[in-house]
Amino acid sequence: MVEILVAEHAGFCFGVKRAVKLAEESLKEARGKVYTLGPIIHNPQEVNRLKSLGVFPSDGQEFMEGDTVIIRSHGIPPEKEEELKRKGLRVIDATCPYVKAVHEAVCQLTKEGYFIVLVGEKNHPEVIGTLGYLRACNGKGMVVETMEDIGEALKYEKVGIVAQTTQNEEFFKEVVGEIALWVKEVKVINTICNATSLRQESVKKLAPQVDVMIIIGGKNSGNTRRLYQISREINPRTYHIETADELSPDWFKGVKRVGISAGASTPDWIIEEVKDKIKEICSGSLVS
Amino acid sequence: MVEILVAEHAGFCFGVKRAVKLAEESLKEARGKVYTLGPIIHNPQEVNRLKSLGVFPSDGQEFMEGDTVIIRSHGIPPEKEEELKRKGLRVIDATCPYVKAVHEAVCQLTKEGYFIVLVGEKNHPEVIGTLGYLRACNGKGMVVETMEDIGEALKYEKVGIVAQTTQNEEFFKEVVGEIALWVKEVKVINTICNATSLRQESVKKLAPQVDVMIIIGGKNSGNTRRLYQISREINPRTYHIETADELSPDWFKGVKRVGISAGASTPDWIIEEVKDKIKEICSGSLVS
Repeated sequence: MVEILVAEHAGFCFGVKRAVKLAEESLKEARGKVYTLGPIIHNPQEVNRLKSLGVFPSDGQEFMEGDTVIIRSHGIPPEKEEELKRKGLRVIDATCPYVKAVHEAVCQLTKEGYFIVLVGEKNHPEVIGTLGYLRACNGKGMVVETMEDIGEALKYEKVGIVAQTTQNEEFFKEVVGEIALWVKEVKVINTICNATSLRQESVKKLAPQVDVMIIIGGKNSGNTRRLYQISREINPRTYHIETADELSPDWFKGVKRVGISAGASTPDWIIEEVKDKIKEICSGSLVS
Repeated sequence: MVEILVAEHAGFCFGVKRAVKLAEESLKEARGKVYTLGPIIHNPQEVNRLKSLGVFPSDGQEFMEGDTVIIRSHGIPPEKEEELKRKGLRVIDATCPYVKAVHEAVCQLTKEGYFIVLVGEKNHPEVIGTLGYLRACNGKGMVVETMEDIGEALKYEKVGIVAQTTQNEEFFKEVVGEIALWVKEVKVINTICNATSLRQESVKKLAPQVDVMIIIGGKNSGNTRRLYQISREINPRTYHIETADELSPDWFKGVKRVGISAGASTPDWIIEEVKDKIKEICSGSLVS
């Protein structure tokens, strides 16, 4: 019998799992329709599954009084949330608690007199939400996306630095170090979430223990490809798939242990489908 | 007539100049002997000049009640200063104000609940002095001299980082960035003095404007050698000397403009001697 081991940290992070669960639970007491403000995750299969339950992604145009709106894990600016409430919508806040911590951090640092540097992508929904909280607490600050951006921050004596939760650690380190050299005082609250690095560490741990590694996730998903690269360096028998259909029986000949990991936008049920398919393949090969 | 330009920032830094001046002034009201606790600068000619005025370097063994003791620019631990005062010595505190700022920073950060990381050399007199101030304000902390040292600091949630004033900026940056990745909150007060970088910037500005550059300072002085390298990259006709005696008439043939810079332990009067000698050489070559 083949043994299938799923990496300790794989697929959806805590915040996305929580948001999906809140979306499902919101259906119970919903009077009108149920929407997520934007797709809850960049995974069409999962978005379709939620649609089939009655949770629809929307940009807000069709909202009617009494409808339910789920704020996804990225969060939104507080004025936007107020606007939804003023329209008579039932608002379910599924903002990731780690993102809420960034909102709190920028306001705490503002109160302490710091100019805020938010290390992140200027157009990322999480960053747009955090900047809204910064405005709401009358803070001053900027987004640093490349090293060229930091000039503005160096005009201030006291700079407070936080990060988009999915920020690359190396770039954050570089920005913090550079600003600390140039301004009088820097306070850093590291708001990077470790979901990505935990996922990578789990692959490093699992890959050497198995005969074959299967990495599940979009072919153009950066974080999935990284998991694939890390795994393949340790275990050359690593395969990258998007769905169970791509599994090939050839990969499992003589295999006793299979390891599985998945990128950030892969729901658990897709991981389960892959596990089931592998079991089927391996039990089939036993009788052939 | 040859034109001699001295770099805007060259030789002794502000703190050392101030300490030498305080040492000279202390002679006026001295009753007993006048000492510096340790050599005031790593330059034997300058130490000898002060000796000839009546200021002697000492490790403290021969101090007698009523003698004057000058605390050099590095500073000393406060308990050591108290001890000197208890012995009935007249204490002149020539600690560099930038070093005093480090003493204040570690105590301010301690009051705010931070574990202190002092980026510097463990056996450097300035670091030993600062650690004394940290103890005196009941702070907890450590010195980070290499990246291997930072492990201890990562056990704390709040880490406050300061630097030895002569700390290398690249290493400081690296330490700040790395610690900021691992702990919850970091506050950095950049206490690095810019004397070294100003000296280097001044050489970069001066070297392309002159026919010949003369860099004065110990052949084994790291900061002087760096000035020499920077200058030579811009102006190949750069020479490194310790004293005016090493100047060669060959270097100045057909030369109209000479630039001069000097390392951190070179007093102004040695720079003046070099200027005079160059003038002598160049005026001599005019008549030969």
